[in-house]
Amino acid sequence: MKNRRSFIQKIAAGLSAAILVPAAATASPGVGLSGALIHHVFFWLKEPGNPQVRKQFEAALKKLLKVKTIRISHVGVPASTESRDVVDHSYSYSLMVVFDSKEDQDSYQVDPFHQAFVTENNHLWNKVVVYDSVDV
Amino acid sequence: MKNRRSFIQKIAAGLSAAILVPAAATASPGVGLSGALIHHVFFWLKEPGNPQVRKQFEAALKKLLKVKTIRISHVGVPASTESRDVVDHSYSYSLMVVFDSKEDQDSYQVDPFHQAFVTENNHLWNKVVVYDSVDV
Repeated sequence: MKNRRSFIQKIAAGLSAAILVPAAATASPGVGLSGALIHHVFFWLKEPGNPQVRKQFEAALKKLLKVKTIRISHVGVPASTESRDVVDHSYSYSLMVVFDSKEDQDSYQVDPFHQAFVTENNHLWNKVVVYDSVDV
Repeated sequence: MKNRRSFIQKIAAGLSAAILVPAAATASPGVGLSGALIHHVFFWLKEPGNPQVRKQFEAALKKLLKVKTIRISHVGVPASTESRDVVDHSYSYSLMVVFDSKEDQDSYQVDPFHQAFVTENNHLWNKVVVYDSVDV
C-alpha cells in the first residue's frame, strides 16, 4: 500500500487534472490526454556514435525538462520494435513533452531553458522534425 | 475535494505505476514516463478534406483505443503552433499510445482491434510514419 500511495501522490502533485481523462467512449483501462498539446521532437545527431556527444546531449535534454509548463515528458531512443517500412528507427533521440495548452507550448519556445538548449546544442544535430498535436 | 479524489481514482485505475515517475533529476513539476514505450503514428489521408472520411477515421481511431495494453493515449490533429521549417503540420491525424513494455507494443500489433483497424481503414491513407521510443 505504501507504494500505491506514493504513486498516487506523485501523480496528484505532477499532473494537471484537466488533461487526464479516461480514454473516451471505450472500455479501455487506458487514460486519454484530453485537452493536451503533445510536442514530439526527433533529433538526428551528426555523430550519433560518439559517446561524448551522446552524454552531452542526454544531459542537455534532461536539463530542458526544468521548463515549468511541461506536464509529462519522455526522453527516448528508438525502440527495438520490428523493422517495418512505416517505422522510422533512424533518429538519434526523441523528446516528448505534454502541455496543458498551446499557450504553454508557446511560452516553452521562449523559455530561457529552451533557448539555452538550442543555442548550446544545435551544432550537434543535422536534422530535427517536430510534430505538435491537439485533440481531434 | 470531490473532484480531486475523482481525478486520483481515475489515474490510479488507469495507469501503471511502473511508467510514471517525477521527471528525473529536475525541479520540474512534470512527470516522466520512465520505462514506457511511446508509439506515435502519423497518418496522411488521401482525402483529408472529406468530412465523411474524417468521421469514419476518427471513429476508427477511438475504437482502436480498446486495446487493453494501452496505458495512455492521444488522438490528435496538427496544432496551430508557429510555422517553422522543423515543424511538420502536414499530417491529417496522429495517434500516440503509451505501453508499459516492448512486449505490450508487440501484442498490440497483433491485437484483433488493431488488425481490424488496419484492414478496414488502410485504403484511406497514402502515408504513415511511426516512431517507437524507449527510455535513454
